[in-house]
Amino acid sequence: MKILITGGAGFLGQQLVQALLKQGSIRLADDGGETEHEISGIVCFDTVEGRIKDPRVSNRTGDIGDAKTVRDLVADDTGAVVHLAAVVSGTAEADFDLGMRVNLDGTRNLLEACRGQGQKPRLLFSSSIAVFGGDLPPVVKDSTTPTPQGSYGTQKLIGELLVQDYTRKGFIDGRSVRVPTATVRPGTPNGAASGFASGIIREPLGGEEALLPVPEETAMWVASPRAIVAMFLHALALSPQDWGWHRSINLPGFVVTMTQAMATLREIGGDAAVALVRHEPDAQVQKLVSTWAARFDTTRALAMGFKADSDFGQIVRAYVEDNREAVRIPVRV
Amino acid sequence: MKILITGGAGFLGQQLVQALLKQGSIRLADDGGETEHEISGIVCFDTVEGRIKDPRVSNRTGDIGDAKTVRDLVADDTGAVVHLAAVVSGTAEADFDLGMRVNLDGTRNLLEACRGQGQKPRLLFSSSIAVFGGDLPPVVKDSTTPTPQGSYGTQKLIGELLVQDYTRKGFIDGRSVRVPTATVRPGTPNGAASGFASGIIREPLGGEEALLPVPEETAMWVASPRAIVAMFLHALALSPQDWGWHRSINLPGFVVTMTQAMATLREIGGDAAVALVRHEPDAQVQKLVSTWAARFDTTRALAMGFKADSDFGQIVRAYVEDNREAVRIPVRV
Repeated sequence: MKILITGGAGFLGQQLVQALLKQGSIRLADDGGETEHEISGIVCFDTVEGRIKDPRVSNRTGDIGDAKTVRDLVADDTGAVVHLAAVVSGTAEADFDLGMRVNLDGTRNLLEACRGQGQKPRLLFSSSIAVFGGDLPPVVKDSTTPTPQGSYGTQKLIGELLVQDYTRKGFIDGRSVRVPTATVRPGTPNGAASGFASGIIREPLGGEEALLPVPEETAMWVASPRAIVAMFLHALALSPQDWGWHRSINLPGFVVTMTQAMATLREIGGDAAVALVRHEPDAQVQKLVSTWAARFDTTRALAMGFKADSDFGQIVRAYVEDNREAVRIPVRV
Repeated sequence: MKILITGGAGFLGQQLVQALLKQGSIRLADDGGETEHEISGIVCFDTVEGRIKDPRVSNRTGDIGDAKTVRDLVADDTGAVVHLAAVVSGTAEADFDLGMRVNLDGTRNLLEACRGQGQKPRLLFSSSIAVFGGDLPPVVKDSTTPTPQGSYGTQKLIGELLVQDYTRKGFIDGRSVRVPTATVRPGTPNGAASGFASGIIREPLGGEEALLPVPEETAMWVASPRAIVAMFLHALALSPQDWGWHRSINLPGFVVTMTQAMATLREIGGDAAVALVRHEPDAQVQKLVSTWAARFDTTRALAMGFKADSDFGQIVRAYVEDNREAVRIPVRV
């Protein structure tokens, strides 16, 4: 079975490719039970080339907004598709047309390519908790009405609606997961407004200064890259019956305040690390972040077997373990 | 001020054109108060030519799925846009691609044309209660999570999300109203799955047989064409401040069961009219209709000044009055 990953060169995409290569096969359940499918190939599609070189990986680059490019990505034996490609929140807000092209047209192109293939491929859509915002209940449930406050959340929600309808029509077997803020995200800052949640850990551990643009009491709903990749694979593995009619779900995560994040940084990197975080309030980021939901009731997802990280210390330790080369100060793990 | 009406040749569009011509001007409120704008022209756009001939009316035909066609509809002095164009529920379900082209691409083309104009035109989007469906609370509120059960409802909901985001971005001043089932709809049956709600009144009054595909206890949330047109004008007239952040609303209507509809038909058309209605259960229509919401709490809309009809008898009498030529049996009104 071939697997297509859009946005595959991104940090979650690369971790997913790595996990799949390590497994060698992918477990997919249907009403007949679980089946282990050998992975014959992974198409890693993105605007830039994926860094993982392996005989089973085909690194392809192109524009997801181009229908023909996307049609060519889906082969007859593509059995699973993971759709991660997106321009992030800050970028989608700054460049409306780019957001619409990548996040909306791109998703439509992919859904059409899967429909055209005719084998009803299993498709996982990486949505976001940014579909929620504004006047929210203290705890957000799967049944809470999404009211996106930005173009990114709007485009993600539209993607979910299309995945739902394409699934209902029998064109694909789709699943959408609303991913918590991924932290600690390795590498360099991207255009996500939530980027500071990774930056305040990653930069100090790398010996660099980081900016905290929001008050310390700010709470966020987060999950580690490791946990997210595991939940992606679980979302794909579950049978259509496990999913039922509703194909969108809020993934488990946990609440971390910036105060707690600082305490963890102190624990692992010491006072020197914490001293590298500079408080510099940014009204625009604060305004956006203040509309995000921080507390979720993910009863359904937990019952379906999705698993969150246990604590923020574990997350930071996993980051250190996975990104040894980026850690340039002495750490206690 | 020029007004653009897409889907203007449809029955609601034509009634709206007529109402606007009769008024001669349009009342629009903003934070400076209400202003009466003289109507210098109405562009009536549809796939077929509008029947109302008037020096102020420009009847244009074309494909709303074509971006250039739609760009040409929005002039520098287009101050208000009413977006009615859509393929209806049954058609959108039967021809998925056509539904996507007209209901989704068409809406995007129109929003882009308005954005390109640069004057932030006031835009009214005719959405539908078909955005709701499935496992619903006994009474649907504005805050109820839309869970469309068909492609039509999905496309309408996506249109609402885009209207909301284009408004937030300051590209347009948009408003979306979720219209109850329009009844009694004059003319010939269209592809709407709810068409029988009009047919069981219209056909017998025209001396023709009608089919009732659902059980008599089936309840529907309805409004008359007259009330809907008045609510369209009200939705346009309200100021941005009246609307606030949330630009989607459930329009007031009232609940009618098929039993009540039959009783009204007997009252107005006698036993002979009722005898023309043949019960012929249609499992597919029943299944679709059973997922629709029939009871709504429209507190917000009523507080904003939207007005529903008072009873079904009044609706049928208005139909008889407005469509004398189509009534071919003796009636008591």
